[in-house]
Amino acid sequence: MNRISIITIGDELLIGQVIDTNSAWMAQQLNQVGFWVSRRLAIGDGRRDILRALEEESARAEIILITGGLGPTADDITKPVLCEYFHTPLVVNEEALENVKNIFTKILNRPLIERNLKQAEVPASCRVIQNKRGTAPGMLFEKEGKIFVSMPGVPHEMKGMMTQDVIPFLQSRFSTHFISHRTLLTAGVGESTLADHIEEFESALPPEIKLAYLPNYGMVRLRLTLNISEAGSWESRLDQLFADLKARVSEWLVTDEDIPLQQAIGKLLIGKKQTMATAESCTGGYVAALITGVPGSSAYFKGSIIAYDNEVKKNLLGVDPRVLDQQGAVSEETVRAMVSGAIRALGTDYAVATSGILGPGGGTEEKPVGTVWIAAGNAQEMLTQKLWLRFDRQRNTELAGANVLNLLRRFILAPPAKGG
Amino acid sequence: MNRISIITIGDELLIGQVIDTNSAWMAQQLNQVGFWVSRRLAIGDGRRDILRALEEESARAEIILITGGLGPTADDITKPVLCEYFHTPLVVNEEALENVKNIFTKILNRPLIERNLKQAEVPASCRVIQNKRGTAPGMLFEKEGKIFVSMPGVPHEMKGMMTQDVIPFLQSRFSTHFISHRTLLTAGVGESTLADHIEEFESALPPEIKLAYLPNYGMVRLRLTLNISEAGSWESRLDQLFADLKARVSEWLVTDEDIPLQQAIGKLLIGKKQTMATAESCTGGYVAALITGVPGSSAYFKGSIIAYDNEVKKNLLGVDPRVLDQQGAVSEETVRAMVSGAIRALGTDYAVATSGILGPGGGTEEKPVGTVWIAAGNAQEMLTQKLWLRFDRQRNTELAGANVLNLLRRFILAPPAKGG
Repeated sequence: MNRISIITIGDELLIGQVIDTNSAWMAQQLNQVGFWVSRRLAIGDGRRDILRALEEESARAEIILITGGLGPTADDITKPVLCEYFHTPLVVNEEALENVKNIFTKILNRPLIERNLKQAEVPASCRVIQNKRGTAPGMLFEKEGKIFVSMPGVPHEMKGMMTQDVIPFLQSRFSTHFISHRTLLTAGVGESTLADHIEEFESALPPEIKLAYLPNYGMVRLRLTLNISEAGSWESRLDQLFADLKARVSEWLVTDEDIPLQQAIGKLLIGKKQTMATAESCTGGYVAALITGVPGSSAYFKGSIIAYDNEVKKNLLGVDPRVLDQQGAVSEETVRAMVSGAIRALGTDYAVATSGILGPGGGTEEKPVGTVWIAAGNAQEMLTQKLWLRFDRQRNTELAGANVLNLLRRFILAPPAKGG
Repeated sequence: MNRISIITIGDELLIGQVIDTNSAWMAQQLNQVGFWVSRRLAIGDGRRDILRALEEESARAEIILITGGLGPTADDITKPVLCEYFHTPLVVNEEALENVKNIFTKILNRPLIERNLKQAEVPASCRVIQNKRGTAPGMLFEKEGKIFVSMPGVPHEMKGMMTQDVIPFLQSRFSTHFISHRTLLTAGVGESTLADHIEEFESALPPEIKLAYLPNYGMVRLRLTLNISEAGSWESRLDQLFADLKARVSEWLVTDEDIPLQQAIGKLLIGKKQTMATAESCTGGYVAALITGVPGSSAYFKGSIIAYDNEVKKNLLGVDPRVLDQQGAVSEETVRAMVSGAIRALGTDYAVATSGILGPGGGTEEKPVGTVWIAAGNAQEMLTQKLWLRFDRQRNTELAGANVLNLLRRFILAPPAKGG
C-alpha cells in the first residue's frame, strides 16, 4: 500500500500561533479515495530542517505532500530550498505570471509590484499546478519514483489544488487500497463500559476491519475501518458488522452516520417538518453558530435571541424580573422561561436555552465557575439539566453546547408526558 | 538551545477525523517560557510506527513530548509500546489507582470495571505524573540524557499536566533561551505591499530578531521574534524596533497586541464605556460567539438577534416587509434596518449586521453564492459594505465575521459625519 507523508512548513505552527487544519483536511480527502496518510510532520522555516524532512520523509513514503512557505516575503523559503533539493534553477512560468497579473489588476485592484511577479517563478524541473484561487503556484516533482507536491499553506488555495489536480493525478499514478469507514455516535456511556459491552464483538473482528473509540464532549464515536487491497465482498461484510454493532449499542445510539449532533437534529426536524430556535446566555451564540454551520439549516432554524445581559432576558424573552432577582440568571426557572420566551418570540416548535458561568471569572460560592443550567422543550413541556463543567472557557462552551443539543434530541424523540 | 519534538499518536489524526489542537497549545506554552519546538509529528496507532518515531525524534531533540493512545480500549497501545521501548514491565501505581476509583465512585457515579483499573498501570521505570482531570496518568522517562513525557490526548487532561508538572520540571532541568515576541495586526493592505513598504526595516534587522508575516482573513499579522541565550539589553532593543515598525505601518494598524480583532474592539468599548449588539442572518451567531469568547465581554456586549428567517427580521428587528420584498434579505437596506433594529431592541450604542448567501446552495444569478452585505453603526449613522466571498461555507462565515468586526472598529474610531 502506498504511504503518504504530509510536511507542513512554517514557524507559526511551531510556536502555536496557528492551528494546522490543512493536514486534517488533506488526510480526510485522501482517505476517501483510498490513500493512507502514514505521517504528518510540521517543521519551521529553516533550510536545513526542510532539506532533512524531504530526505527522511521520502525514505518512508511514496508520496510527499508539502504545504507552506510559498508566500512573497523573506521568511518564505520553501521555493529556493526545493531548487536546492532537486538541483534545478528558478524560472518564470508564463501561465502563473498571467494569473498573478490578472489577480492584481482585475480582482484585488492593487498595485502589482516586483515582489508579486516573483510569485510566478518556479523550479525548472517541476510540473506547475496553476493556482486558481491565489498567486502562488503549486509544484509537482518526481525523484527516484517518489512524488513530491508543494502547495501554498493558505487553506482554500491548497484545497483547490488538491481537489482539481493533485488527487486526480495521484489516482492516475497509483493503485489505491479499498478503505471504507462506518461511524456511529453514542451518548450517556463511558468509553470503558462501552468497550466491555462490545468486547465479544471486538475480539471477533477479522484483521481487515479495525474498531476505534473516539471520545469527545462526553460522547463516544465508534468507527469501523475496512482497509484491504480489493473490495470483493468485504463491503457487505462491513455493513453486516456495522448493523451488529448498532444493535449492541442501541440504548446509547445518537446517530449511525459520521455527522455532528447538530446535523442529526436537523435531519429529525426536517423529517417532522418542525422548527427550532435558541435562547442563549452563557454560550453567547455558539449553539446557533453550530446549527447554522450546517448547509440547509434554514429549513428548520428560525433564529435566536442571545440574551447576554439580564435586560435582554426580560425585554425580549419575557423572563420575570422576580425570577432573576430571586433565583438569579443561572437557575432552572430562568432557562425554562428563556425556552418559553424564544418559542413565543420566534414562533418555533422547539427551543433550547443556556445560562451559566463559563469562567475564568464570575463564580460565587453558591454558583461556582462551571455551573450551567440548560433546557430544551416545546411550548408545553421541557427537559432541564444542571451541568458542572470543570474546564476552560472554550471547552466549557463546547460542552454546554453539546449537552443542550443532546437534551433537545432526547426531547424530540421522547417528550415527557404532559404535566409529568 | 534545547530542541523539543512533539509526537501525537492516533489514527484519527491521520484520517482527518480530528484536528490536532493539542500541539499548537503545547508549543505556545513552551515558547512562552523559552523552549523551542523544532518538530511536530503525527503518527497512527501502530507499534512499529511508534517505536520508530521514539527512536528518530530522540536523535533530533533533547525533549520528546508524546500525547495520545492512553485510553482504556484495544486501539490504545502507547503504554505497552513504551514498556517495550524502555525495557520495563507494567506495574500498578497506587496513587493513580486511588484517582481512578475516586473519579468513578465520586464524580462519574458509574460502575468501576476491570478495564478502568488497568488505567492505573504504568511502566515500572517511569516517574508517574498524576492526572487531576481524568483517569490516565502521565509518564516521564529518562534515557541517555533525553526526557520523554507521555500524556493523554484529551486536551484538558494534557493541559493540566503540562501546566502543573511538565513545564515546571523542564524549567528545573534545562536552561532555556530568551524568546520574546511582539505582534501587531494590520488590515486593508496585502502581504507584498507591506513587505515592500518595510523592506528597509526588515533588511536592517539584527540576526537575533526575525520578522514573520502571517496573513489571515484578509488581514496580515506581523511578528518580531527575539531568540537569544541571554536577554541582556535585547528586550529594550526589541521594543525600539517594534515601535519603529508600528510607526511604519500606522496607516493600516489595527492593534499592536497579539489579540484577536474582537478583543481589540472590546478594549475600545471598555475605554469608551459603550455597548454593542449583533443582528445576524447569514453568520448565524458566529459573530456573537466570537465576541462572547472573550472573558469579560459582558461589560460591553448585551446580546443579539439571530434573524435567520425573514419573519424574525420583520418581527424582532423591525425590517420593513417592503424592503424584504423589493430589495431582498441580502441588500444594503436590509442590513441598515437590522443595525437600527438591534440598537433599538437591545438598547446598545452600536450594532453590526450581516445578511448574505454563504453557500454551497442558495445563490441566484443576481446574487450569487458569496454575496454578503454587512453594516456597522450607531443610532444615527452607519458604514456598509458588500462582500464577494469565494470560498466554502465555513471560510465565508469567518471572512464575513472578520470584515464586519473591522467595519465596526473603523466606525468606532472615526464615525462618518452626520448626514454624510
